[in-house]
Amino acid sequence: MTLPPAVAAVRSAVRRVLEAERPPTVVVACSGGADSLALLAATVFVAHTSRDATGTHVVGTVVDHGLQEGSAAHTARVVEQMAALGADETFSATVSVGSAGLGVEAAARDARYAVLGQVATTVEAPVVLLGHTLDDQAETVLLGLARGSGGRSIAGMRRGFDVFRRPLLDVTRAETEAACVAEGITWWTDPHNSDPRFLRARVRAEVLPVLEDVLNPRVRHNLARTADLLSDDLAALDEVAAAAYEDVVGGRDLATEVDLAGLAGLPRAIASRVLRRAALAAGARDAELFAVHVDALARLADAPGGAAVQLPGHVTAVRGAGTVGFRRTA
Amino acid sequence: MTLPPAVAAVRSAVRRVLEAERPPTVVVACSGGADSLALLAATVFVAHTSRDATGTHVVGTVVDHGLQEGSAAHTARVVEQMAALGADETFSATVSVGSAGLGVEAAARDARYAVLGQVATTVEAPVVLLGHTLDDQAETVLLGLARGSGGRSIAGMRRGFDVFRRPLLDVTRAETEAACVAEGITWWTDPHNSDPRFLRARVRAEVLPVLEDVLNPRVRHNLARTADLLSDDLAALDEVAAAAYEDVVGGRDLATEVDLAGLAGLPRAIASRVLRRAALAAGARDAELFAVHVDALARLADAPGGAAVQLPGHVTAVRGAGTVGFRRTA
Repeated sequence: MTLPPAVAAVRSAVRRVLEAERPPTVVVACSGGADSLALLAATVFVAHTSRDATGTHVVGTVVDHGLQEGSAAHTARVVEQMAALGADETFSATVSVGSAGLGVEAAARDARYAVLGQVATTVEAPVVLLGHTLDDQAETVLLGLARGSGGRSIAGMRRGFDVFRRPLLDVTRAETEAACVAEGITWWTDPHNSDPRFLRARVRAEVLPVLEDVLNPRVRHNLARTADLLSDDLAALDEVAAAAYEDVVGGRDLATEVDLAGLAGLPRAIASRVLRRAALAAGARDAELFAVHVDALARLADAPGGAAVQLPGHVTAVRGAGTVGFRRTA
Repeated sequence: MTLPPAVAAVRSAVRRVLEAERPPTVVVACSGGADSLALLAATVFVAHTSRDATGTHVVGTVVDHGLQEGSAAHTARVVEQMAALGADETFSATVSVGSAGLGVEAAARDARYAVLGQVATTVEAPVVLLGHTLDDQAETVLLGLARGSGGRSIAGMRRGFDVFRRPLLDVTRAETEAACVAEGITWWTDPHNSDPRFLRARVRAEVLPVLEDVLNPRVRHNLARTADLLSDDLAALDEVAAAAYEDVVGGRDLATEVDLAGLAGLPRAIASRVLRRAALAAGARDAELFAVHVDALARLADAPGGAAVQLPGHVTAVRGAGTVGFRRTA
């Protein structure tokens, strides 16, 4: 019997991560959807069943956000399913999602990552696998386009950060479904995925089909590929900016000062990143420091008699003689 | 009487370019559409009519591609219109468009730029103004997404290259139409703009309305803004890569060699650009050197026993001891 190509694709994606990092224990985040069930099944195969098994201890983990009716029963079913698929250990965790200042989707995501990180600490797993697919990545890029903050907003999801890894970013959602079908796995379809109140669901149902029809039937792949290339570009720019920052930033006590003579010789994209770094070092809030603020800093640096610029996090940037200085104002 | 905001927007966009460069003579490319007629009218105003007129000699130029029936009559009408709007001089040029190896749109564009460059040389104009708007930029970014070659493909049109400048990239198409209406200018609507055989026309009619509906009513502005930010990023990366290239590339005679020890210390996005530069220096063809080729070069650099990589333009890259060498093979 030949191995179905979709099963092979998911397994080899998981193998790449486990062989590169060789974690003794791995947490697999599992919602009960086709993507994460295919991920769990492939992880068990790579860890235990395959000829060159890595011997990794596999911990399946499901997070109940309590956002949908019947979520406790659903969570219990996923725990059973993970055990049946061969997970060595299973966890379920309940989180309560507040939405103060954030949308409910973002709040649920933050809570999920926090609890997955706690499980990883508990079981001493250096790696947590997430089931995001190439389709998720393409949708993320399109959602980023709506924000218009440049490369950062369209570089998509990272392949890895902290303990988290996303092995399936080169695998399509359809492949994870085909893998489940081939392995006789029944998956759950999250009703939020087709609920038009969620922006991502509308991108999936309305935007991507039009792009495929008009632009290119492989537009999802191209969006994901663009995200990869931009991630590399942004990492390189950050590395260059970090080195430049050391050269042009000084300061005493709580103040941070950028030397404008040094800044003047830098390409615009590097200079703006140096100013952003200085603002963060002075206490400005990362998540609220947008391109519009960095633009204002760049204008301040260009203008001999420029006024002060207020930044989120109670930081004020002031033009000095040959410097831009950053002060906390509260 | 107050100045209509759309007229003010077009004029101030043109003024920024003419005041920065102060060309004694400027060529304005004019198709007879609302964008380029508004551009021409604003250029005449900034050059001659405004209180602080720059005194620039304005040369209106229309290019007849002979692609549509009645194009000669249309061209004659645009010449009359440019003169009536106050152009100091008018040119019309006929080009014949072959489409060997290129789509007819790309061939027409290349021919148009070539003839505009010739007119600029003839009238000794250091600057040629093109009427591309923010809408054109947004469409270009979306067309680039279909290619998936990373930042380069979605950085859109440059604000300037060689003698060409695009002052209206911050002005919407609707603003150029409103400016024409306010000034009593009748414009021509290119039937190609709504011909679904042209990809750009479908992006305009089918893709952008969906993106505005689902993602953000200001998605055009965000796409244009993203293009600007990415252009800066790419320029910075190219500048850093050019410096790195000097450090790691040597070679004798027709061969170019990249030192892998030097390359290994560079961020991936810089290393890939250094390899691309070396391939171009060895004679590879820029327009045909895609991300897939650069990826193959990066793998060659990583693999101790890598085979050779063939590049467009009859260039072969070969892994040596601690080097990747480039050779012309024909």
